Amino acid sequence: MSYTVLNAQLTSGLLGDREVAGFFTTEADIAAMVRFEAALAEAEAAAGVIPEVSAQQIIALCDIFRPDMSGLAVGIERDGMVVTDLVRQLRGSLQGQAAQDLHFGCTSQDLIDTSLILRLQSVNGLFAKRLGQICATLTELQTRFGSKDLMARTRMQAALSTTVAHRIVGWQAPLERLSESFQAVQSTLNVVQFGGPIGSLAALGPNGPHVRCLLAQRLGLNDPKGAWHTDRSRLLEYTFWLSSLANALGKLGQDILLMSQDERGEIVLTGVGGSSAMAHKKNPVKAEILLALARFVTTLQSGMQQASVHEQERSGSAWALEWMVLPQLCIATGTALITAQTLLNSVQSLGDP
Amino acid sequence: MSYTVLNAQLTSGLLGDREVAGFFTTEADIAAMVRFEAALAEAEAAAGVIPEVSAQQIIALCDIFRPDMSGLAVGIERDGMVVTDLVRQLRGSLQGQAAQDLHFGCTSQDLIDTSLILRLQSVNGLFAKRLGQICATLTELQTRFGSKDLMARTRMQAALSTTVAHRIVGWQAPLERLSESFQAVQSTLNVVQFGGPIGSLAALGPNGPHVRCLLAQRLGLNDPKGAWHTDRSRLLEYTFWLSSLANALGKLGQDILLMSQDERGEIVLTGVGGSSAMAHKKNPVKAEILLALARFVTTLQSGMQQASVHEQERSGSAWALEWMVLPQLCIATGTALITAQTLLNSVQSLGDP
Amino acid sequence: MSYTVLNAQLTSGLLGDREVAGFFTTEADIAAMVRFEAALAEAEAAAGVIPEVSAQQIIALCDIFRPDMSGLAVGIERDGMVVTDLVRQLRGSLQGQAAQDLHFGCTSQDLIDTSLILRLQSVNGLFAKRLGQICATLTELQTRFGSKDLMARTRMQAALSTTVAHRIVGWQAPLERLSESFQAVQSTLNVVQFGGPIGSLAALGPNGPHVRCLLAQRLGLNDPKGAWHTDRSRLLEYTFWLSSLANALGKLGQDILLMSQDERGEIVLTGVGGSSAMAHKKNPVKAEILLALARFVTTLQSGMQQASVHEQERSGSAWALEWMVLPQLCIATGTALITAQTLLNSVQSLGDP
Amino acid sequence: MSYTVLNAQLTSGLLGDREVAGFFTTEADIAAMVRFEAALAEAEAAAGVIPEVSAQQIIALCDIFRPDMSGLAVGIERDGMVVTDLVRQLRGSLQGQAAQDLHFGCTSQDLIDTSLILRLQSVNGLFAKRLGQICATLTELQTRFGSKDLMARTRMQAALSTTVAHRIVGWQAPLERLSESFQAVQSTLNVVQFGGPIGSLAALGPNGPHVRCLLAQRLGLNDPKGAWHTDRSRLLEYTFWLSSLANALGKLGQDILLMSQDERGEIVLTGVGGSSAMAHKKNPVKAEILLALARFVTTLQSGMQQASVHEQERSGSAWALEWMVLPQLCIATGTALITAQTLLNSVQSLGDP
Repeated sequence: MSYTVLNAQLTSGLLGDREVAGFFTTEADIAAMVRFEAALAEAEAAAGVIPEVSAQQIIALCDIFRPDMSGLAVGIERDGMVVTDLVRQLRGSLQGQAAQDLHFGCTSQDLIDTSLILRLQSVNGLFAKRLGQICATLTELQTRFGSKDLMARTRMQAALSTTVAHRIVGWQAPLERLSESFQAVQSTLNVVQFGGPIGSLAALGPNGPHVRCLLAQRLGLNDPKGAWHTDRSRLLEYTFWLSSLANALGKLGQDILLMSQDERGEIVLTGVGGSSAMAHKKNPVKAEILLALARFVTTLQSGMQQASVHEQERSGSAWALEWMVLPQLCIATGTALITAQTLLNSVQSLGDP
Repeated sequence: MSYTVLNAQLTSGLLGDREVAGFFTTEADIAAMVRFEAALAEAEAAAGVIPEVSAQQIIALCDIFRPDMSGLAVGIERDGMVVTDLVRQLRGSLQGQAAQDLHFGCTSQDLIDTSLILRLQSVNGLFAKRLGQICATLTELQTRFGSKDLMARTRMQAALSTTVAHRIVGWQAPLERLSESFQAVQSTLNVVQFGGPIGSLAALGPNGPHVRCLLAQRLGLNDPKGAWHTDRSRLLEYTFWLSSLANALGKLGQDILLMSQDERGEIVLTGVGGSSAMAHKKNPVKAEILLALARFVTTLQSGMQQASVHEQERSGSAWALEWMVLPQLCIATGTALITAQTLLNSVQSLGDP
Repeated sequence: MSYTVLNAQLTSGLLGDREVAGFFTTEADIAAMVRFEAALAEAEAAAGVIPEVSAQQIIALCDIFRPDMSGLAVGIERDGMVVTDLVRQLRGSLQGQAAQDLHFGCTSQDLIDTSLILRLQSVNGLFAKRLGQICATLTELQTRFGSKDLMARTRMQAALSTTVAHRIVGWQAPLERLSESFQAVQSTLNVVQFGGPIGSLAALGPNGPHVRCLLAQRLGLNDPKGAWHTDRSRLLEYTFWLSSLANALGKLGQDILLMSQDERGEIVLTGVGGSSAMAHKKNPVKAEILLALARFVTTLQSGMQQASVHEQERSGSAWALEWMVLPQLCIATGTALITAQTLLNSVQSLGDP
Repeated sequence: MSYTVLNAQLTSGLLGDREVAGFFTTEADIAAMVRFEAALAEAEAAAGVIPEVSAQQIIALCDIFRPDMSGLAVGIERDGMVVTDLVRQLRGSLQGQAAQDLHFGCTSQDLIDTSLILRLQSVNGLFAKRLGQICATLTELQTRFGSKDLMARTRMQAALSTTVAHRIVGWQAPLERLSESFQAVQSTLNVVQFGGPIGSLAALGPNGPHVRCLLAQRLGLNDPKGAWHTDRSRLLEYTFWLSSLANALGKLGQDILLMSQDERGEIVLTGVGGSSAMAHKKNPVKAEILLALARFVTTLQSGMQQASVHEQERSGSAWALEWMVLPQLCIATGTALITAQTLLNSVQSLGDP
């Protein structure tokens, strides 16, 4: 057992999703924050809030900026988040007015939350593609094996004879529903965070909403028409969707575990796992992992809900809890998608033996 | 402490919702099941699956049927659910063909799940009304106190001075979002369950989908175009919506707890609780309860998610877990709505003293 | 589905524990509180804190006191707990000095928490007896079937042939460990709560610890040497023990579900559940319920842990959350014990067919 | 936000515990497994189960063995755990009889679980020391500030004036209780896992228990008198203790958050966090993190409980869930200990201003 199995050297091949994890690195996070500062300068200049020349200097800096990582580490330990020192470093590379104009009317949460949203956009592109592929593979399995006989089971007991097609529909239907709702989930999620220190954009006066709208456009995001510093419902709806997906794939794993019992032989898989002690064992490892991931993601989703009550205008503690939970919730869901695909690809036969 | 505080004689005035609880009584449950059997007979006769005369006898019986409750209790203990004995009792009051035609092609889960949906429809009517009233009350508070000064607080520290209006917007925005999505949530939820023993409607042959559609119409529900015996995602989406609501109200409670601290005096409430030991104490009881309910509903929602992986064509254990969790999740959310309204009604003043 | 399945008229025979639920009624709760006030008066008189004559009057009243329930209900709704009005009612039946001396130096939490502990003592007597009986029944099954062959299964696959004895040891060992630790768990749990308004017993001056010790003796409880208003760890250790028990019984249920699959026939049960649609079905209802209860109790235990951070000298919200969770956690564990016993009693044969 | 904040480059200074994380690396895990194989060979030779010469060759190999990591990675992905390939690699470096004698009568779970226990022993040494230091620091704060006035607060309202001493006792008492129970918790936890393929040690015949006892001695562990492949209660008791500790520290954080509110000024801290937008802000970052960690550890503990029902003789899915949860639960608790110490060290004054 290594910490954590999702990103450890050895176990991440089994239990991790290196592609999705790539969006949760420090580098990816800071790059998105710097992109935010450039877009903000551009939007504020366009709205006449800061001078065009400041914006140009800020944008030019953001293009080439490389943070002093050890300085950031010290800042994080002191401030509880990276932004204070990051802004200090950026300002240190700017002159006079531009230094003042950087980050104008903004707050750390604007950067941190928007950086998350930008990276989730990319993650969701992957998820949509993988989910589509899983549905397509189920359709192929339907074609190959759908007409074969299968005993239906209710309450763990043989019920009536049916076909493999009926079981596959039971797997596919919730995945299709999730596919259909994913566009709407993403469109709710893909909003800029921009509210300034207390969420009111007060420093921008009447220009606030216009700047937020321009900023959103430049980042390819929607304008939420307000700050959501304390209203985490968009994130929650998203992780709820992820947990529903993980559980739909968990059912697939659970069913295959039951079907692959020796006396049943209702499914034959290739590439199943070996044992250190019993040469004859063929462990349905991927199916086990799907079920474990479903329970893991469900556990993490309950943590997201515990993090959803933010007091007053910003909760440091609820927010930090979100940081601990959300990235691994995404990666574990990504792992579930990869694992399900591998498992389905390994199906050699389906149906009563 | 009495079991349970949500429905005990004394505590249900504080922590319960007697109106919503009324939809989770045995009587309401069985009445909805009997209504289902009548509608099914009507639909099956209309589709030519059973004779019209059988349907008439079944419908007539359902109109006057009074179950033998002690028989049902024995049946539940033996079968793990009420339907087997309920159908036996109904059949016992019918003659010949009609006795056979009752419940034709149907299964216990069809009755139990549809009965739940029918009752949730009524619950949701109440919830929509209450939520609307809370939003209206917040608008009134906005009018009365919105322009008063209030210190905004981030990370539990005084941040910048703002107005009461800004704080109220922070409470209202998530409630408005929930209001807007409630129609869609209900429309997803309000579907008939009808799949027969293994979810395939096999006994009805090609008539299955048509009967399901007619049955849905007669019950005022949508046709889900399939059975959802093992796909609990509609229920999960609904209880997730409830938990989001409870948490949005929990934030209201948490903020008011903080605002009513002695040194702050940012809110004045009437009707606050007394202490058995300290006559000067004015405990903001309703605010405390809102926060407790948010955590309670979140806990129950994690139970709903644990119940969402159903194995094969029906899971007795996952389904039973749902029965333990869902009703109290609804009632606790209802209590949160009542409590929030009472709390908001008791606001005498808002803003910096 | 009826609210709640644990105490509804019909379902409590299957999913409830009427004996344990009896300790969580309003009557039982208030009786224990009144007993506390009598014992406190006696202890305070013995320590010279209040006059002997006051104590006699209080004790005499407590013997015959019948609360005005509708008054209590109004009080609970106002104060968030029952004690303020209960003390008011008791005082109303006393004269002069005795009225003042009642509840001296005490606070509502002292009554509510101690009442809970007193009732849990009785509950635990039942639990110890039931757990002992289950272990004895497993020993009997060991005698009857232990030498029969059984295929051992690891990772859901046939591993090596063993005997039924080995499987039964796997069920019994965790139950025996729990049996052994139960005495220590109870002895930690069985403490009086007595701290006064802020937990310091300040009103009693130097007599505080002595009165607490005398009070504990009179109630048959241990003296915790301090107040535990905000330190809920004793309760948490207790409910953790309960959840460990429910999960150990859940494994029994899960294994029996798998063993009773048609192709296996490794277990034969009497009295299994019937289906409304398939006459041949023999549903292992009790085994399903054991598994569902394990997940339910685990869910509730996570709620208890969420309730364990009390702020400052008393948290109204964390405490209210405990009230919502703890009683049903006890009752569900009691149901698991009853269900396991019934299930084991129904075993007709064990071992490879 | 970086995945994961507990071990990411930047955030692990704030939210991680690098010392504890060191025990959850792949290297530490495999080193402990190799140590297990050496100790097993020694024990089996001492019991006459394998020849002394085989044991010597195995022990010599284990001293110098360096695994082929890429081979292990492939094996993990195929087998769902590392042991099958690790044993294959070790055997590949041995000749004839010794190759056969390695891992005799053993199974992968024996290695994986014992490796975990061995590393937790070291982790717990750290935890005991840190917890002792926190208690000592609280005693120092008691000496420095205990006699100062402080307003006690119940239900978020000013109750009665007391001293700082009373508040500190409220923090210290649960930590002292945890200190006292830690020895017993460790002694329950520190057991060898040795059961062979199905937990029966069948391959060793009558020598099984003796070998297990010798193996335990050589590893400095206790003999559990049986295998605990499916009985995870020792691990659960341990992580429950960790979660109780995290919650006791969470109360400290929560109280300090409330005390450091501007209007209160009941505590003064050095080294508090800065804001990117408001120069005057002094965010009590460490206190926030303590509260967040309490909720995080509680969430993970609920995952441990979900992982506690193992079916039949080994559950691949429940076990994999444990791997996902347990290491981060330990590290987060370690972080809480570090954070609490830093927070307490930063206290400049305590008491009413």
